[in-house]
Amino acid sequence: MSQELFKHLNKYVEVSEIDFKKILSFFDSRSFSKKEIIVEAGSKCDLNHFVVQGCIHMFFIDDKGTERTIQIAIENWWMTDFLAYHNRGETDFYIRAIENTQILSITHEKQEQLLNQFPKIEKYFRTIYQISYGASLMKIKYLYDLSKEEIYFHFTEQFPEFAQRVPQYLIASFLGLTPEYVSEIRKKNVLKPV
Amino acid sequence: MSQELFKHLNKYVEVSEIDFKKILSFFDSRSFSKKEIIVEAGSKCDLNHFVVQGCIHMFFIDDKGTERTIQIAIENWWMTDFLAYHNRGETDFYIRAIENTQILSITHEKQEQLLNQFPKIEKYFRTIYQISYGASLMKIKYLYDLSKEEIYFHFTEQFPEFAQRVPQYLIASFLGLTPEYVSEIRKKNVLKPV
Repeated sequence: MSQELFKHLNKYVEVSEIDFKKILSFFDSRSFSKKEIIVEAGSKCDLNHFVVQGCIHMFFIDDKGTERTIQIAIENWWMTDFLAYHNRGETDFYIRAIENTQILSITHEKQEQLLNQFPKIEKYFRTIYQISYGASLMKIKYLYDLSKEEIYFHFTEQFPEFAQRVPQYLIASFLGLTPEYVSEIRKKNVLKPV
Repeated sequence: MSQELFKHLNKYVEVSEIDFKKILSFFDSRSFSKKEIIVEAGSKCDLNHFVVQGCIHMFFIDDKGTERTIQIAIENWWMTDFLAYHNRGETDFYIRAIENTQILSITHEKQEQLLNQFPKIEKYFRTIYQISYGASLMKIKYLYDLSKEEIYFHFTEQFPEFAQRVPQYLIASFLGLTPEYVSEIRKKNVLKPV
């Protein structure tokens, strides 16, 4: 199962099987059932999570009591509240399994030890974060630039795997839309003459 | 002047004066006058920029012809279209000097050479990007969670230096607000009884 991480590391840096065994020992492998909470808002953010199998989302609850999804991660994606993780502070966010999920979690302290022992993993994380930060800036551009309908179709075209696996109401939440609105634009577009 | 970068590197990793001289040779030092364009949208994104002195912003032009600011950077901040820079693709964004500005720019190719020659700089960028990505996720949270007025006051409280140096209409644009709206909430709050 942890071969996912081995393959993902080797996409960006060269890691031998022998080194990977040592690298893996810094992580805890954990399983969660569909809908199970992985992280509670208000807790100390001390873990960074790599999705080996399944799907998870990070969300907060707004003052109307509505869950608002900020990140969705499937296999090979990392998830945490990166600012709180960096500062070793409390997180404002929950993380929950959308499907039955297996993750590899690493504490802040163990990540520091891992990076000291295997400095090449710095390059791996630098690349991952560079891409993620860039993608996050593009998401802000879309939120400013596109109509709600365009945001929805742009996302489903760009990430068809997410659109297929993740429930509609979570995609709506992730894109800052209501589930009713997404259902409406889907209906409108299904009924549109070709 | 380039001492800014030396100090900033040493905030996260240990770099000697001798190594810094070599590191600096990978960069081009460039000066721009207030309002001068540094990067044109549609051009190949091959440079990452570190602000030594001054202030710059990254923006796109929406279909109504309005400039929408996505990033603002003062001293010690990095700026580029990180996704296009990673992919060596074309950028959708302009970068312009808000004040008379001096930057250090590095090409994608030279950054790779720099990181090969000084692997410890990976840790520097990994940390910078980890913080930036985390901050970007928090910005999306604020866009979803806070009222327009709350977004404005949250930003000006959290980044007083930006609020002081950057023209109101650019802060408005960065926060997804109109300049008229910012002027209105400022007026309303100045007139509020204490």
